[in-house]
Amino acid sequence: MTTTVSEPQTTTTTPPHLTAPEREPIQAVSLILSKGSLDMAYPGLILANGARMSGIEANLFFTFWGLDIITEKRLDHLHTPTVGNPSMPIPTMLGGLPGMEALTSRFMKKRMEELDIPPVREMLEILSDAGAKLYACRMAMDMFGLEREDLVPQVDGVLTVMDFFDTAAGSQIIFI
Amino acid sequence: MTTTVSEPQTTTTTPPHLTAPEREPIQAVSLILSKGSLDMAYPGLILANGARMSGIEANLFFTFWGLDIITEKRLDHLHTPTVGNPSMPIPTMLGGLPGMEALTSRFMKKRMEELDIPPVREMLEILSDAGAKLYACRMAMDMFGLEREDLVPQVDGVLTVMDFFDTAAGSQIIFI
Amino acid sequence: MTTTVSEPQTTTTTPPHLTAPEREPIQAVSLILSKGSLDMAYPGLILANGARMSGIEANLFFTFWGLDIITEKRLDHLHTPTVGNPSMPIPTMLGGLPGMEALTSRFMKKRMEELDIPPVREMLEILSDAGAKLYACRMAMDMFGLEREDLVPQVDGVLTVMDFFDTAAGSQIIFI
Repeated sequence: MTTTVSEPQTTTTTPPHLTAPEREPIQAVSLILSKGSLDMAYPGLILANGARMSGIEANLFFTFWGLDIITEKRLDHLHTPTVGNPSMPIPTMLGGLPGMEALTSRFMKKRMEELDIPPVREMLEILSDAGAKLYACRMAMDMFGLEREDLVPQVDGVLTVMDFFDTAAGSQIIFI
Repeated sequence: MTTTVSEPQTTTTTPPHLTAPEREPIQAVSLILSKGSLDMAYPGLILANGARMSGIEANLFFTFWGLDIITEKRLDHLHTPTVGNPSMPIPTMLGGLPGMEALTSRFMKKRMEELDIPPVREMLEILSDAGAKLYACRMAMDMFGLEREDLVPQVDGVLTVMDFFDTAAGSQIIFI
Repeated sequence: MTTTVSEPQTTTTTPPHLTAPEREPIQAVSLILSKGSLDMAYPGLILANGARMSGIEANLFFTFWGLDIITEKRLDHLHTPTVGNPSMPIPTMLGGLPGMEALTSRFMKKRMEELDIPPVREMLEILSDAGAKLYACRMAMDMFGLEREDLVPQVDGVLTVMDFFDTAAGSQIIFI
């Protein structure tokens, strides 16, 4: 297994031209993942993976619904909301029909697979192998009644918000 | 009343080990709260509170639906969406039933109370007492037809986006 | 046409007083727009516009549902979710009725117009004229099967996540 995910092999149509040499490169990112839907889990995991591929340190702090992403019983069943998301090409009424959500999630998982983007569980392994740090939020754990054993083994620790700010020193905080 | 909220008294299972001594600690955070649901109000308020407890300056900028959090008539009635949130253990169809949203919000408020996390109104007082600054977005105020009198007394001012960027100097901007 | 949008001509009730002179002003922002709803498109576009008006460099990186904002066939039809958004003054059941979403979007567009905030298409032109850089996410393009021709002409390029982190050097990353 590779330690990072390759992005699709198409080339960039226009090279970025904003990075003046004197600009300080991003050193580290601290991603707060607060949502448990498939379509908000992937942006966080993909940003973390891209950071590691660029030699940028990556901390992931899972809180609120984002705890689902690292919870053993939930992470293989993350869904994509079909209602409340006007970008989905599904009328609101239809979006509410049973089975519609599962269908959309299946479509999204299939597209991800075609693009060689691993499922969430494997993404977590890849990130951990690549040196990203995975933390669960203490308060959210207590709120949902979760214990350390309920989480995937890749989790490096359970942090309070104050601990989180400590680990975030020198990094960019990104809330997702 | 204490000036900050204590986090639950469980200890951190794994100490954070990423903070190299040479890393610059976070000095200040500028949180943009753009959503008015209970489950997106709390992450912002809790992050701000954790920042103050760590000696980090905290500015909160309430915009769009986030204005609800500081609007007198709305802040005691913030809800948690039951539809459009696949992390809720409620089927989409059921989530749309009248009363379901109130039920979920009541559950969330009860858990918050059990964890000694104060209700939103008290959180705003605590944050203000602890030196956090609360600002309303000028444009969003005009959009929703709100006046200064419609907001809680803790609000320190109404800022344009340009004013916001001025106050954000030296801080991390976090959009919620 | 002006190159930036003027904010409503009401004055700020309280001047910001947090900016100590020694604080380093924000130099550049890199906004990640991941959502395609009207109410999450505007915060990103308005922040970018405010940044340019303050002499702050602005990069916009459109990914996931946020691609809708720069996709020719979609950008004039962005909607505001009526379900899953408890801030909307519409009961969940009603929010699911056909036509309700269009009605809410029409209300929002009308208020925006009254406040002299241009429609999305014009905002993109204004931002581009003001020197903001617009980038599409390579992976999201592949996921949705989009080509460069499907996007508005203002788009400056298609970037991988690694490219994005390069362009973000020296800037604040803000995920919306």
